[in-house]
Amino acid sequence: MLSEPALIAFRTALGTDRVFTDLAICTLYAQDETPRHVEPDAVLFPSSHDDVAALARIAFEHHIALTPRGAGSGNVGGALPAPGSVVVSFECMKRVLEFDPDNRLIVVESGVVTEEIDRIARSAGLFYPPDPGSSAYCRIGGNLAMNAAGPRAVKYGVTRDFVLGLRAVTGSGHEIRTGCRTTKGVTGYDLTRLLVGSEGTLALITEATLKLLPVPETIATLRVSYASNRDALDAVSRIMRQSVIPCALEFMDHRAIDAIRPTGAADDLPSGTRALLMVEADGAKEDVPRQIAILQKTLAGQGLLDIKSGFTHDDIKLLWTARKSLSQAVKRIAPLKLNEDVVVPISQLADFVDFIDEIAHEHQLAVVSFGHAGNGNLHINLMVHPEDRDEMARAHTALDAIMRRVLELGGTLSGEHGIGTEKRRFVAQEIDSDTMAVMRSIKQQFDPHQLLNPGKLFPD
Amino acid sequence: MLSEPALIAFRTALGTDRVFTDLAICTLYAQDETPRHVEPDAVLFPSSHDDVAALARIAFEHHIALTPRGAGSGNVGGALPAPGSVVVSFECMKRVLEFDPDNRLIVVESGVVTEEIDRIARSAGLFYPPDPGSSAYCRIGGNLAMNAAGPRAVKYGVTRDFVLGLRAVTGSGHEIRTGCRTTKGVTGYDLTRLLVGSEGTLALITEATLKLLPVPETIATLRVSYASNRDALDAVSRIMRQSVIPCALEFMDHRAIDAIRPTGAADDLPSGTRALLMVEADGAKEDVPRQIAILQKTLAGQGLLDIKSGFTHDDIKLLWTARKSLSQAVKRIAPLKLNEDVVVPISQLADFVDFIDEIAHEHQLAVVSFGHAGNGNLHINLMVHPEDRDEMARAHTALDAIMRRVLELGGTLSGEHGIGTEKRRFVAQEIDSDTMAVMRSIKQQFDPHQLLNPGKLFPD
Repeated sequence: MLSEPALIAFRTALGTDRVFTDLAICTLYAQDETPRHVEPDAVLFPSSHDDVAALARIAFEHHIALTPRGAGSGNVGGALPAPGSVVVSFECMKRVLEFDPDNRLIVVESGVVTEEIDRIARSAGLFYPPDPGSSAYCRIGGNLAMNAAGPRAVKYGVTRDFVLGLRAVTGSGHEIRTGCRTTKGVTGYDLTRLLVGSEGTLALITEATLKLLPVPETIATLRVSYASNRDALDAVSRIMRQSVIPCALEFMDHRAIDAIRPTGAADDLPSGTRALLMVEADGAKEDVPRQIAILQKTLAGQGLLDIKSGFTHDDIKLLWTARKSLSQAVKRIAPLKLNEDVVVPISQLADFVDFIDEIAHEHQLAVVSFGHAGNGNLHINLMVHPEDRDEMARAHTALDAIMRRVLELGGTLSGEHGIGTEKRRFVAQEIDSDTMAVMRSIKQQFDPHQLLNPGKLFPD
Repeated sequence: MLSEPALIAFRTALGTDRVFTDLAICTLYAQDETPRHVEPDAVLFPSSHDDVAALARIAFEHHIALTPRGAGSGNVGGALPAPGSVVVSFECMKRVLEFDPDNRLIVVESGVVTEEIDRIARSAGLFYPPDPGSSAYCRIGGNLAMNAAGPRAVKYGVTRDFVLGLRAVTGSGHEIRTGCRTTKGVTGYDLTRLLVGSEGTLALITEATLKLLPVPETIATLRVSYASNRDALDAVSRIMRQSVIPCALEFMDHRAIDAIRPTGAADDLPSGTRALLMVEADGAKEDVPRQIAILQKTLAGQGLLDIKSGFTHDDIKLLWTARKSLSQAVKRIAPLKLNEDVVVPISQLADFVDFIDEIAHEHQLAVVSFGHAGNGNLHINLMVHPEDRDEMARAHTALDAIMRRVLELGGTLSGEHGIGTEKRRFVAQEIDSDTMAVMRSIKQQFDPHQLLNPGKLFPD
């Protein structure tokens, strides 16, 4: 339990209306998108960088663990409160501190919703490329903590690639400023990228200077049906071997298509469709048709059943129906989704998806795979019933085998969701002990009392 | 002096033919592109990762400082031996360990010449975008240490953006492996980017997994003459506010043009040319003319005197004559070049170049400015006579004022050359003490005996 002196200190520093200990509020902040619940001892709502610095100093003095939280939309327990910790919600830190279109940058507080950044950028002919699926409600602070990405990463890169600099508070309450305001800068160590993806375990990020790009004039979309997963993934390999880089290259396997059939969203796919690619190109109005023509030619090959193209907003929206219906559709299969966000080299994708099929069959599990194939990044969803202990045990055995295979193929445990609480047990299979020791020793420098987001990222 | 037991240990580990202590060799490795000389106690030529691990363990045991070195082509003393240190030359580690065009990656040892990486990539329709001016002879290890860049950075990014993973040896002789082999990956802290740009102070990088891109089909070039620096830099601002991103956007100021006049390289510029831009576009054959047309339209404005375009190899080469003659031409002005590699926000470039003019006038110095204007990255060359103590003193006063102004304008001390020995005295003006303390504590974890490249990057 939070001690009375600590509670008074938090209230004095932030104001009584920004410190909550009642169960109703603590229950609201007890979970993220994972199925676990852990009530925090309190929830704090800082409204500025200075508030965060103050609360971090109090936490340091009183040895209170802090669980930073954006929108709580993460998939791996990154914002799941550690037992006895205090949640630091960044929801009230949503000021845009500076928008400088001439230098293609924006400075925002951590609680700004990701889509809002893109919206502001577009008002001046710019855009913010990283586009996680949750961008309508997730907060940029969470994106920074997890190094979030999305479909556009195949062309534009991930969150890390769009951060110029950060303002943050360490676990001992010290302010640090990293990076710069320009697209080049090599003064000192790259603490910016050390903090991005560190899952809130090194510092509480309060402000970020983000790079923006000129918005492409137009976009066009291809929905491409194949007779098998392998046919579709061979086409992905061909796409990534030529020079037109699509701004989305999304894959759905045959189980994903089966999942959407009951919703009607697969009705206009050719019969025999066992895999689907969504391929997009963006750029100048005169140039996008050229890109699309080359992509169509490259996509043609073994097992191609159909290519539908869309050049208008309405047509594009229609083409995405199948893909967009998937999230709801999989919920019908089973109440709980174990969403594994793995990456394998593109040349291994087809073998890997075959392996997933074998595993699903062997362990009698409903598995739906889709994802950002252009980065080799697949979301493998094991659909399970949490009350079915036998199924859960089989799912965990399958997950172990999947992670092992990912690493055997030269892949990585997570492409964009992070490690959080959910993948900690696999980390030591990917990161050797000497490298892990270096990471732990860095953690110790930023957070000597081990107060920042305990129980995340590192194995026990 | 290197102790006898240490020398024997190095010889036993590496072989006698890979350990040199004679003055002739030590003198060869006493300097980089800066005018200082410090003879090392020995020069080691490891031929593999295991050699590097072995020598690092010996250095750790015997408390011997190590100065890692690629080609010694750096501008800031990054490879300048610390007194009493042993140079670790990576020249013999030049194996290409793996080239995987299907996954757009290459794995190389640190001693591979940068241009060689690009050459191999092009054999399979790919390329390696970072293109420092020294790419024909610099080594990738030096590029990684300094986060090197070049003209193409404006479109493609810097070295940091093309490193997927690293193999390295810490100051205590431990091997670490960072990153992954895929374009997405968020498992653990981003040690890859922590090492890139750390100037050899954290670990000896032995191998790198680099990302490649599809090579653009064609390239075209514009040479654009303006009546003033401000006119040219206003055009740079306009270019960076629209959607066609050039693959080079290089600037030469009026003093740079004056410098090349005696060589004849400025003869075909319109009279009254006081600033020059080199603008390049790359992409598909059908699309580059569209890009060039838009760039030409955007470049037109106040003070434009002339635009020459080149679409063939020979024409492009001719257009670059003025710019390429600059390095030799400035040597005629004075024997020593103090090359300052600063960055300011693009919107501040014109004011900043005006300020450089004032400073040059006030301190009666020959100053030539040019650089990668699309990144706000200028190379400000103070041409001096080292034996003229008064001029040298004025140059140093001017440098102090320039660095102050860079930081006032929201810029950074170095865009691509690094800090090394030469800019250490300015670092505390850019990085605050708490952030610097974090950097030093990270250094301590990687290199507890402070053996790796001492005297670089950090202020005294």
